[in-house]
Amino acid sequence: MEAITNAFKKVKEQSPLVQSITNYVVMNNTANALLSLGASPIMAHARSEMEDMVSIISALVVNIGTLDEYWVESMLAAAKKAKSMEKPFVLDPVGAGATPYRNQTLTQLIQIGPSIIRGNASEIMSLASVNIQSKGVDSSNTSDEALDAGKRLSNETGAVVCISGEVDYVILRDKVGKIKNGNPMMAKVTGMGCTASAIVGAFAAVEKDLFTATMAAMAVMGVAGDLAAEKAEGPGTLQLHFYDALYQLNPEQLAEKAIVEFQ
Amino acid sequence: MEAITNAFKKVKEQSPLVQSITNYVVMNNTANALLSLGASPIMAHARSEMEDMVSIISALVVNIGTLDEYWVESMLAAAKKAKSMEKPFVLDPVGAGATPYRNQTLTQLIQIGPSIIRGNASEIMSLASVNIQSKGVDSSNTSDEALDAGKRLSNETGAVVCISGEVDYVILRDKVGKIKNGNPMMAKVTGMGCTASAIVGAFAAVEKDLFTATMAAMAVMGVAGDLAAEKAEGPGTLQLHFYDALYQLNPEQLAEKAIVEFQ
Amino acid sequence: MEAITNAFKKVKEQSPLVQSITNYVVMNNTANALLSLGASPIMAHARSEMEDMVSIISALVVNIGTLDEYWVESMLAAAKKAKSMEKPFVLDPVGAGATPYRNQTLTQLIQIGPSIIRGNASEIMSLASVNIQSKGVDSSNTSDEALDAGKRLSNETGAVVCISGEVDYVILRDKVGKIKNGNPMMAKVTGMGCTASAIVGAFAAVEKDLFTATMAAMAVMGVAGDLAAEKAEGPGTLQLHFYDALYQLNPEQLAEKAIVEFQ
Repeated sequence: MEAITNAFKKVKEQSPLVQSITNYVVMNNTANALLSLGASPIMAHARSEMEDMVSIISALVVNIGTLDEYWVESMLAAAKKAKSMEKPFVLDPVGAGATPYRNQTLTQLIQIGPSIIRGNASEIMSLASVNIQSKGVDSSNTSDEALDAGKRLSNETGAVVCISGEVDYVILRDKVGKIKNGNPMMAKVTGMGCTASAIVGAFAAVEKDLFTATMAAMAVMGVAGDLAAEKAEGPGTLQLHFYDALYQLNPEQLAEKAIVEFQ
Repeated sequence: MEAITNAFKKVKEQSPLVQSITNYVVMNNTANALLSLGASPIMAHARSEMEDMVSIISALVVNIGTLDEYWVESMLAAAKKAKSMEKPFVLDPVGAGATPYRNQTLTQLIQIGPSIIRGNASEIMSLASVNIQSKGVDSSNTSDEALDAGKRLSNETGAVVCISGEVDYVILRDKVGKIKNGNPMMAKVTGMGCTASAIVGAFAAVEKDLFTATMAAMAVMGVAGDLAAEKAEGPGTLQLHFYDALYQLNPEQLAEKAIVEFQ
Repeated sequence: MEAITNAFKKVKEQSPLVQSITNYVVMNNTANALLSLGASPIMAHARSEMEDMVSIISALVVNIGTLDEYWVESMLAAAKKAKSMEKPFVLDPVGAGATPYRNQTLTQLIQIGPSIIRGNASEIMSLASVNIQSKGVDSSNTSDEALDAGKRLSNETGAVVCISGEVDYVILRDKVGKIKNGNPMMAKVTGMGCTASAIVGAFAAVEKDLFTATMAAMAVMGVAGDLAAEKAEGPGTLQLHFYDALYQLNPEQLAEKAIVEFQ
């Protein structure tokens, strides 16, 4: 837990510059979440400035939610630049499996080598099945199946894989951490997953141990969600209390409220 | 009224997947409104995935608010695919009449054959005057003029036409329904009309009688707006209480509070 | 102060149509702020309608936050059309100095001749150093340096220059006004600067004296921010109370609460 609160302190102290190439739906949310957390968001996608922009940032988050041909070129250029400069590159595979175009784009991005991949269970399972030679279904239930897909994806890519849901799983090869915070109503606010990926980016910018960075980010998401849900009457009030909670959260509260396990 | 509450129950039970090709300003709002209602939003506009995406959805909503040449190609491709698969296609003609480019685009979209067209009075009157041989002004006041334009537009296109305003009109040829819910402060929140169109899409996805679907959607909008206005001090608080109200609304409340008339 | 409250009354009475070509992150915010204020927002960026759209508006706001090659062409076309029709053109140079591409784009936009330029201190200093032959650092501290850069930029371009921050400066050549309202928490809500630029556009649309228009806009921003901060627990609640405050604000309150100085 100390590693988690230390990472949180570093985000507050260093206010890292995090570039998101993300979808139109959530740009406002994720910028507000990063600001409330104490990080500095920048959104930029022009091919004419991709390499220059990546040069000045501390972490890159790529989210394919509303991808198109132009944006994909910029995503690929930014990811390559981030890798060449050894900056963290977080991938959010929104809608993996929904269309062949999304799958092809994700395969290209995964070949560049994301540092961290965060998605929901169905996205991670889709990524694993498209990008890894299938070994057949060897799990007894959906949750195990997702966890198994996450392990295979992490082993294949070397990336930390995060599966968010009722319980969040953070996986590095065979190491697994769990975060049990968060409220089901968060799924009724658009872009909460995308916000999680942006926050993962902020932590990866300041904490070199990317497993710890991801655990800390998801713990902060979950605890802020818990605090917000106590005050909310529905998804509308939840969203704004979530930003307030992120803004007010301190390391002691985080240590007290985070429910973290390792297996 | 029972038809309306039944349609509402079906949205909650089936959680239909609704694709919006909509404007940048309101994407976040409309996604949140659909989630609060119990539907599943997806935003996608890449030409490389239009046909594949339309194949997996239950309704398509096209909103031209921030159109450009690329997006219009995708709108046309998606609309054609939806028609070929007999899926509902809702058109929101934002800014009809403002520029020749909007008028030309709307003419192309109307030729594909929208199932439902929802706009404000000036947009519907503009659509009718551009796309239908004018019969001269045969109305004594603006409201009658809009209603007359709506009837002509419905007769010409076969679509259900919805004119939203202080009173919402739903028109299928010569059949007219009215919804008298809603609060004037809703006009001070951006994208409330666009949100109405998205909700119409969710109802059209589950209710084959598109006149009933549109009546039900506008009743839900209006009642949620009434409930939100009771708690709001201005447009900022109205918006979030609107999502909360959509989330909390149940069929009994809807039946009790909806003010629906037929003429 | 009377000039400021008069300008505010004119915005409420005339509800000017303000076109924003702005970034994806803040489109929703700025539209909501303009509506709450009593103005009419329109967002449009298609090259196919730029000249037609600019023909019907009362002011143009160009914000380069998420620029790309297509959008820059539209920005340039719209700015030229606005100048040719002698309509106010407000420039928000988001991220000036971050990349060469942003600097080149800003140089092109400045050559067209913005009526008003609003940015933060680092953006205005970057603009001045790129676009004006440097005279060396002749200031004793950062704040003086920014003010000096603002004066040089105003003298060189003829534009009113606004530097927003803890104190907002409004500069026309050697004339300087200050607004001391506003709350530090506003910096934790994304797009508050962009919102300020949009509101400047609304005032420039109705008040020919652009120095007064900019002073009035920044006073309204600051006072609404003060009122919102009294009720807010964090950036989430601040944002919605800000819209409510803009909506409720009347000329008497503005006159009472605005802290305005001239030097």
